[in-house]
Amino acid sequence: MYDVHAVRRDFPILSREVNGKPLVYLDNGASAQKPQAVIDAVSKAYGHEYANVHRGLHTLSTIATENYEAVRGKIARFLNAPREEEVIFTTGSTMGFNLIAYGWGMENLSEGDEIILSVMEHHANIVPWHFLRERRGVKLVWVEPEADGSFDPARVAEALTERTKLVTLTHMSNVLGTVVDIAAVAEILKPRGIPLAVDGSQAAVHMPVDMQALGCDFYCITGHKLYGPSASGAVWIASERMAEMGPFMGGGDMIRTVTRDEVTYNDPPHKFEAGTPGIVQMIGLGAALDYMQGLGMEAIAKHEAGLRDYAQERLAGLNWINVQGEAPSKGAIFSFTMAGGAHPHDISTVVDQKGVAVRAGHHCCQPLMQHMGTTATCRASFGLYNTTQEVDVLVDALETCHRLFG
Amino acid sequence: MYDVHAVRRDFPILSREVNGKPLVYLDNGASAQKPQAVIDAVSKAYGHEYANVHRGLHTLSTIATENYEAVRGKIARFLNAPREEEVIFTTGSTMGFNLIAYGWGMENLSEGDEIILSVMEHHANIVPWHFLRERRGVKLVWVEPEADGSFDPARVAEALTERTKLVTLTHMSNVLGTVVDIAAVAEILKPRGIPLAVDGSQAAVHMPVDMQALGCDFYCITGHKLYGPSASGAVWIASERMAEMGPFMGGGDMIRTVTRDEVTYNDPPHKFEAGTPGIVQMIGLGAALDYMQGLGMEAIAKHEAGLRDYAQERLAGLNWINVQGEAPSKGAIFSFTMAGGAHPHDISTVVDQKGVAVRAGHHCCQPLMQHMGTTATCRASFGLYNTTQEVDVLVDALETCHRLFG
Repeated sequence: MYDVHAVRRDFPILSREVNGKPLVYLDNGASAQKPQAVIDAVSKAYGHEYANVHRGLHTLSTIATENYEAVRGKIARFLNAPREEEVIFTTGSTMGFNLIAYGWGMENLSEGDEIILSVMEHHANIVPWHFLRERRGVKLVWVEPEADGSFDPARVAEALTERTKLVTLTHMSNVLGTVVDIAAVAEILKPRGIPLAVDGSQAAVHMPVDMQALGCDFYCITGHKLYGPSASGAVWIASERMAEMGPFMGGGDMIRTVTRDEVTYNDPPHKFEAGTPGIVQMIGLGAALDYMQGLGMEAIAKHEAGLRDYAQERLAGLNWINVQGEAPSKGAIFSFTMAGGAHPHDISTVVDQKGVAVRAGHHCCQPLMQHMGTTATCRASFGLYNTTQEVDVLVDALETCHRLFG
Repeated sequence: MYDVHAVRRDFPILSREVNGKPLVYLDNGASAQKPQAVIDAVSKAYGHEYANVHRGLHTLSTIATENYEAVRGKIARFLNAPREEEVIFTTGSTMGFNLIAYGWGMENLSEGDEIILSVMEHHANIVPWHFLRERRGVKLVWVEPEADGSFDPARVAEALTERTKLVTLTHMSNVLGTVVDIAAVAEILKPRGIPLAVDGSQAAVHMPVDMQALGCDFYCITGHKLYGPSASGAVWIASERMAEMGPFMGGGDMIRTVTRDEVTYNDPPHKFEAGTPGIVQMIGLGAALDYMQGLGMEAIAKHEAGLRDYAQERLAGLNWINVQGEAPSKGAIFSFTMAGGAHPHDISTVVDQKGVAVRAGHHCCQPLMQHMGTTATCRASFGLYNTTQEVDVLVDALETCHRLFG
């Protein structure tokens, strides 16, 4: 039985007040709060077991290296990746997609090659491809969601040409909550040998994800959304794609030999991890994944499905709220605007007075905003510690807002 | 009066034992330990004041943004940079030099252009330039230190040609301890308009550094060596050089607008900071700089000069120890090998049994190792919490080693 009140006690920040009201944190799509287990793992790593990793032969370096490298296996198990050497540590999905674009894209794509991406993508999965457009003459081919916000894999099939060299899609929209059927897209691409990159920044937080079942080639996750530290994360890359990649950042650890005249590279995954890494962040991310798996990803998904259903029902009762995205596969992410012209920024500010943290803006999804014919929405995004009572607080706060602006 | 024993009490790890002996941590060149003030700042940021930064309008996001952005000013003051918008947050000097190489180098250098660098450089300040050699046909021109490990700025003047487009040098060698007279090199380059990049990873830890006095164009610092968190850091870039740069990583925050067809960029420094940054790490780095400045950089430098003199004298008494680097400007970093053929790795392992943490290997400086005719050294590198008694423990441990292998 999922005891959300016990879960909440694991997160110290959830007992604080904001503007004299209990914090109702509904900005999980931007970043999640941290359980005490993560904070303690970070403090312990700095306070008692810290040194630089790799090649150090002294005791602390050995301890730190073991603690740090153990996280690679934790991430591999979390993603059900076939091999832990296929896990590359990053600072989050932004670095993940830059690694793919620079390391795989710059090596394998040339003028006129096409990349298919959806208009739902986050800027992290758009701007690195624009770099390839600018620098390599690659063409970006956009596919759109359906009117209800769902995503039809057939749109990818329709967009394929002889020049398609990569498809890159979010697994869960950070604005609409839409879950994309990645396995179905992979089915379309596999016979043609076209690689599929996936932004798991949201999906991996809210549901079990399985690299072997999805059939994609690249999968990015973001640690700070996974209840882990700032600037932690990883990208899983299938070995055959890793073999096609050049290095991204240069520095220590990623080399085998450096002379005045040349440089040779270390084996993957180290080839793609330059310099002293985010040692303690990654140890903290390991603690976060342990925490989530302790609750169980199925249990988290079920809890959040309950929140989604309840929020959907309550928000449907506010006929002056326009929710964007009603895909059957939707996660507990609600973007909305308010009839009567209250700006999302104003809504955010008003509900903050009631202790409710929501985000307002383009959510790093300007092409999706353009597709929806707006520049900004308000977004309430739920996490594993949220409750149906908090949905009620949100609705009450929105009603206040409606009275002020409606 | 610098009270090193009081300082030591600020670092929880220094009270621990290793192999049944009090820890003597002499691996500061690789990474420094963290004061409780940094650990507390990190815990507080996660436990009570956490949210994603920028554009969030709710209270926690505003608090986190203020705490995070305040660090830009702290770094600017630490470096005496003319403008805080010239400070770009990084995960350390490896990312710093990759940002310079990709953002400035790829935009401004072409085939046959020459980059002057010293053989003392760390791989972080070598491999990104090898990328430019491989991808742009740029030529790397190497300058060497003198026989005693000191660095003569005249070597740079001698290596200049009409094609010299960049000079990049360490401010303090992480192997030899040599401090390079950056201001003298800048004097040579200024009249010719040749930019100067500097690796401050070691120097900024051990002495006051002043961007306005040095006269360089780029200066990289590494947070985890500055008693701050993993994956924190910054690069200072003179505004006129920043204006010559393209973006490095693409994603949220660094853009102004994204459409299906094009992307325009945010103003510096944000143009160079893609995606959710290392929020809490940077807050922790701010606490570390506050801590160091509370002690005073002059006082730290004086304390470490005392350690250097004492260690130099004690090591000179061991006639079977061969210390590399005896520049008059040397900092408290001692690389050495042992007569009789004990491998640096064996030395490291034996002294670790006495609780002494030193590093053995090439220290990410293979060209310097090649220049010195070796593949590895043992390195004892001191920090602000080390004591002369710890030098004695090191010397005793080395004597044990000598008895075993000598």
